[in-house]
Amino acid sequence: MSIRRPVIAFAMGETVRPRVFTDDRIREFGEIADIAGYLTEYESDAARSVLAEVDVLVTGWGAPPIDDAVLAAAPRLEAVLHAAGSVKAYLGSGVLERGIRVSTAAAANAVPVAEYTVAMILLAGKKVLPIAARYRTERDDFDVEAAFPGMGNYGQRVGIVGASKIGRLVIEMLRPYAFEVVVYDPFLSQAGASELGVHQVALDELLATSDIVSIHAPSLPSTFDLVDARGIGLMRRGATLVNTARGEIVDQAALTRRVVSGELFTILDVTVPWILEPEHPLYSSDNAFLTPHVAGSLGAELGRLAEVALDELRRLVAGRPLEHEVEAELLAITA
Amino acid sequence: MSIRRPVIAFAMGETVRPRVFTDDRIREFGEIADIAGYLTEYESDAARSVLAEVDVLVTGWGAPPIDDAVLAAAPRLEAVLHAAGSVKAYLGSGVLERGIRVSTAAAANAVPVAEYTVAMILLAGKKVLPIAARYRTERDDFDVEAAFPGMGNYGQRVGIVGASKIGRLVIEMLRPYAFEVVVYDPFLSQAGASELGVHQVALDELLATSDIVSIHAPSLPSTFDLVDARGIGLMRRGATLVNTARGEIVDQAALTRRVVSGELFTILDVTVPWILEPEHPLYSSDNAFLTPHVAGSLGAELGRLAEVALDELRRLVAGRPLEHEVEAELLAITA
Repeated sequence: MSIRRPVIAFAMGETVRPRVFTDDRIREFGEIADIAGYLTEYESDAARSVLAEVDVLVTGWGAPPIDDAVLAAAPRLEAVLHAAGSVKAYLGSGVLERGIRVSTAAAANAVPVAEYTVAMILLAGKKVLPIAARYRTERDDFDVEAAFPGMGNYGQRVGIVGASKIGRLVIEMLRPYAFEVVVYDPFLSQAGASELGVHQVALDELLATSDIVSIHAPSLPSTFDLVDARGIGLMRRGATLVNTARGEIVDQAALTRRVVSGELFTILDVTVPWILEPEHPLYSSDNAFLTPHVAGSLGAELGRLAEVALDELRRLVAGRPLEHEVEAELLAITA
Repeated sequence: MSIRRPVIAFAMGETVRPRVFTDDRIREFGEIADIAGYLTEYESDAARSVLAEVDVLVTGWGAPPIDDAVLAAAPRLEAVLHAAGSVKAYLGSGVLERGIRVSTAAAANAVPVAEYTVAMILLAGKKVLPIAARYRTERDDFDVEAAFPGMGNYGQRVGIVGASKIGRLVIEMLRPYAFEVVVYDPFLSQAGASELGVHQVALDELLATSDIVSIHAPSLPSTFDLVDARGIGLMRRGATLVNTARGEIVDQAALTRRVVSGELFTILDVTVPWILEPEHPLYSSDNAFLTPHVAGSLGAELGRLAEVALDELRRLVAGRPLEHEVEAELLAITA
């Protein structure tokens, strides 16, 4: 970036912008850049005239993809700073081909998901959620050790499916605790696993030997039904499956059967469909804990995404390298 | 300890012993010591004959206190290794006076409580538990940010009441996260607070400014009703109170009123009484999450206590200093 004071525009869903970029944060952008406008689409004349002059687009959830027509309308565009997680769906192939630099807040967006996961793994190892459910129903004391054999966070095996950004962060955040962590990821090298300090295993072994299985694979055609009915069948009695990634990765019907029958426990932030139908049996099972897709950045956590975009813009202005630049070859295996 | 191969005995509740000391672990003790017996009391002739020869007592939950009569019956006793948390109730004043060394597994016992707390703080900052409760009831999508203003783990203030072993461990375990942690502890020095890397505040300020308040004070006459009705009244709307310490420290009636009215959230592992009466309104509030005193060591976590006692015994045999020796002056301000 050779421009000392770039012209920038924000492009994202109409309700997304004020949630992620508070007025205070917009002011901070205004201190180092000229703000040409706030876009929700790239088609209108007004949008075209903004695109004509922007050096940097700050994008977010709900932004339309930057296809060749957008690129043609934005001849000065040098960088796209994406203030959200996965950027893939927002980029036409022309963007990286034209040498436009792309940065993503995926690392920052990974934080709340990893936090949710770590909290749930700690609770799963101790069976805290089913204990609380039973206590609420029975309103009486009961022998928790007899009710949940093998409970307790000491030496339990945690199986991480997918050494994605979030999966890696979970592994790192679990380090202070007395878990044995194993990982399955077909793209992880031996050296990569050693660096993470975890043992790499095949998916079947992970499912068959872990007390807690946590899904962190990307949502791709190749990960659809990755943990299929056979895989669910391999899980040991009393184990917990945590899914904060995508419902489609797990055979939900097979999981539901084993949870409802009392053999498995589950903590699901994602399901198919997104919101389970009201009569779904998981709602009323003490062995299931459901949240409506809230593990990702929400509320105050959105500020972290804005800060990453602001930091990246500061780097561009100062001529320093971006911290979270997207490399073209990585896009193929990430979501 | 001058004795190369000490004579030891285990003293604790009858059901406690096999839970904490599995046969495998007992074998490990037997490798470095002669096991004179397993006691549940110190009065019988059989117990007296064991006490007559023991160098080291390994005690646990349910052991009777070591009073002067026990000391008189155990002339060779040189060390008490307590495989549980607080050791105070198990010691007559004569024990430390006679120079008997006392070690406690309180540090190990603090770990599961701190883990439970950290998990709950992460969930509380995101309002995950009330979100899940509402989702289970409504079985439909809803705007979680509108329902829970200010939610999200980014820059929230966590107030730790009591820099106890557990309180300190929670502070340390919270370090990787984007919380601002403040602490109230009348016994904590300025230097101690700096060392913990936290800001020290008065209790009123902590209650009035924290998004999440977590109780880690010891249960002592001086901490009874420490967070009284006035203190509960100071807490900001939408804040969460987490209590894993003792129910008596908090004005439960005042807390219940504000939780049921929707102003506060709470996560309670301890209440008064121990198990709430079945008609207690907290059971049916979506803003309350209750567990029946399970944050402490349970299940697999009990093995950690046994390992601490075994490690301490190894130190005694090797003539090395104990790692968790109890100092007489500390007993006065701890539980």
